[in-house]
Amino acid sequence: MRQVSIIGIGQTKVGEHWEKSLRQLAADAIRAAMADAGIERADALYVGNALSGEISGQEHLGALVADFAGLRGIEAVRVEAGGASGAAALRVGYLAVAGGLNDVVIVCGVSKMTDQVDPVRAAALALTLDGDYEAIHGLSLAAVWALIMRRYMHEYKVKHEDFAPFAVNAHRNAAGNPYAMFRRPISAQAFARAPAIADPIGLLDAAPLGDGAAAVVLCPARQAREFTDRAVDIAASTVATDAVALHDRRDPLFPAAASESARRAYKQAGVGPEDIDLFELHDEFSIAAALSLEACGFAERGRGVRLAQEGEIALGGRIPISTMGGLKARGHPVGATGLYQVVEVVQQLRGEAGANQVKGARLGMAQSLGGSGATALTHILKAID
Amino acid sequence: MRQVSIIGIGQTKVGEHWEKSLRQLAADAIRAAMADAGIERADALYVGNALSGEISGQEHLGALVADFAGLRGIEAVRVEAGGASGAAALRVGYLAVAGGLNDVVIVCGVSKMTDQVDPVRAAALALTLDGDYEAIHGLSLAAVWALIMRRYMHEYKVKHEDFAPFAVNAHRNAAGNPYAMFRRPISAQAFARAPAIADPIGLLDAAPLGDGAAAVVLCPARQAREFTDRAVDIAASTVATDAVALHDRRDPLFPAAASESARRAYKQAGVGPEDIDLFELHDEFSIAAALSLEACGFAERGRGVRLAQEGEIALGGRIPISTMGGLKARGHPVGATGLYQVVEVVQQLRGEAGANQVKGARLGMAQSLGGSGATALTHILKAID
Repeated sequence: MRQVSIIGIGQTKVGEHWEKSLRQLAADAIRAAMADAGIERADALYVGNALSGEISGQEHLGALVADFAGLRGIEAVRVEAGGASGAAALRVGYLAVAGGLNDVVIVCGVSKMTDQVDPVRAAALALTLDGDYEAIHGLSLAAVWALIMRRYMHEYKVKHEDFAPFAVNAHRNAAGNPYAMFRRPISAQAFARAPAIADPIGLLDAAPLGDGAAAVVLCPARQAREFTDRAVDIAASTVATDAVALHDRRDPLFPAAASESARRAYKQAGVGPEDIDLFELHDEFSIAAALSLEACGFAERGRGVRLAQEGEIALGGRIPISTMGGLKARGHPVGATGLYQVVEVVQQLRGEAGANQVKGARLGMAQSLGGSGATALTHILKAID
Repeated sequence: MRQVSIIGIGQTKVGEHWEKSLRQLAADAIRAAMADAGIERADALYVGNALSGEISGQEHLGALVADFAGLRGIEAVRVEAGGASGAAALRVGYLAVAGGLNDVVIVCGVSKMTDQVDPVRAAALALTLDGDYEAIHGLSLAAVWALIMRRYMHEYKVKHEDFAPFAVNAHRNAAGNPYAMFRRPISAQAFARAPAIADPIGLLDAAPLGDGAAAVVLCPARQAREFTDRAVDIAASTVATDAVALHDRRDPLFPAAASESARRAYKQAGVGPEDIDLFELHDEFSIAAALSLEACGFAERGRGVRLAQEGEIALGGRIPISTMGGLKARGHPVGATGLYQVVEVVQQLRGEAGANQVKGARLGMAQSLGGSGATALTHILKAID
């Protein structure tokens, strides 16, 4: 098994891209990543996407994106795992390069979410839940997370306003990220005043759906220096799953897939949570951020919210999260999000995060969730000495 | 890179499975493949599926199928490449095992196509075309293949009835396959009399959409004998792509992805078309069968139909195709088809094809196409001496 490096990154701004097609967004991110890596060709392209059939009227994105990005003929398929699709595509790219089957591989995540009205988007997102047992009863993705949040608040005696630091932190960090969807800070008061979208989840607990694409270029670590002196190594790449339906899980407040995926990642990288300098987690809802922190060993169960309240998730804190705005404020282009997280970790490890730089960052982690956490992908990236 | 073996196969009958859910079909095939391999657990599951969001109201099939098949927690994602999704999932499983990242891997393809009325299915299938340039103008998948067929007939002076041997051969073979959707022979007269569905494509040129699931279990060749004495090796696994839109291709009658994918497969396996004992091709429409034969070197350009007319595609011919009925008569559960083909090649190489056995088969090939041929996967399987 070969060590794998990321030698190029690319991303579009997240937002409403009325002027650009789905394939154009993907090609923009891919060409940016290729330019960053200094490559003109590649052996394969793996595209992460969820719901483009329902939202954009287009499946079969592997061949489509490859062709439009100037890579006609290349090996290309699409990988899907709900909201974790971008990270799942990276996992497949990692398999190909680590295993020695392909050398230079591009992984791209892309989604256009704003072409449809919200009921259509909500219906599409519900397809990442259990259709026969959850969506059929009218549950939406936000509604399932709301059930989890309500239970969390009850079980651990936490109030809704206690979750404010997650949103405040994300928006503060997004202000320094030119690719973010919402670049303005918000206050804890604004968080508390926001209308409920699925009680107890308020508007400012929830990540905004946006359009965007992000891409990385992979190659074997041994060849990385031929291309760039800014390569970052993939120290771990893992996937774990759980029951898709919330009621089928052993404990609705224990995200088993996130926990198991992190456990495998720490094992593969030979590190522990105490070694991680920053953590891009799946803060699609503030409750998800709290649970990810707990699942990955940064806080005891029921204490993820406390970690945020104590300021430890800020850029100078013990474990900075959502350092470029997170899903909450950078925005959530569903099938691309997992790769935005990875691109942002690379920015941090290269020391290119500008005002948002985590000082001395050497080891960064990204975790992406599908559905209400039934799929979890964890990637640990490492700066090269 | 490790040699990879298929140590177990499983399939459900193709047809209308009103009594079984999507996940149940998948689990049935997976449990059958696991029993065939004699395994109780696996390291990962890759699910091939196209259009389950549109047809079955369910995305995020990796975690869903893993859980229902008794594999909760396992690494699991879904792979999509239109009609080639099942084969694309096999490619990802191959990457994982060949590369040494996972040892025992299950690959499953599943689709339920009959739960929806035909206009819904046709609209879904059109999403595997180019949405912005083909589907937007009302082109369906059958219509694009009809354009190709019309051009082929014009260019090579071939009549519609000349394509009859493909359908006649497929139906004759399906009669011997208990898993096939249509087990009755048809005549060339019936083929000629069938109503047009997208002129010149008639009803008996087209594969019937069905429900079904097929699965295989992979492991490193070195470990295969620990599980079974009936293992089959994967001698080649390749993907190539082309423009998704027909009008963007250099030559509408040259399936570049199929040709390139086959070229890479022959190279990887160190064989040529003359070495292949049987060929499961993507006869979704009879024209596609003719073009696959040409793209893979079994006939000169424009002579694929002649090969069929000369009887060389029959079980005793030079290159038997659709030996268990093909898409045409075994049926076409879109996201599962690529794995049905592979399961059938394994049956042949094990000598378990019953009345349909290709005598002395040692090397078999399967080729699966997405859209109107924009994605092509080719797998060459080899009997172990």
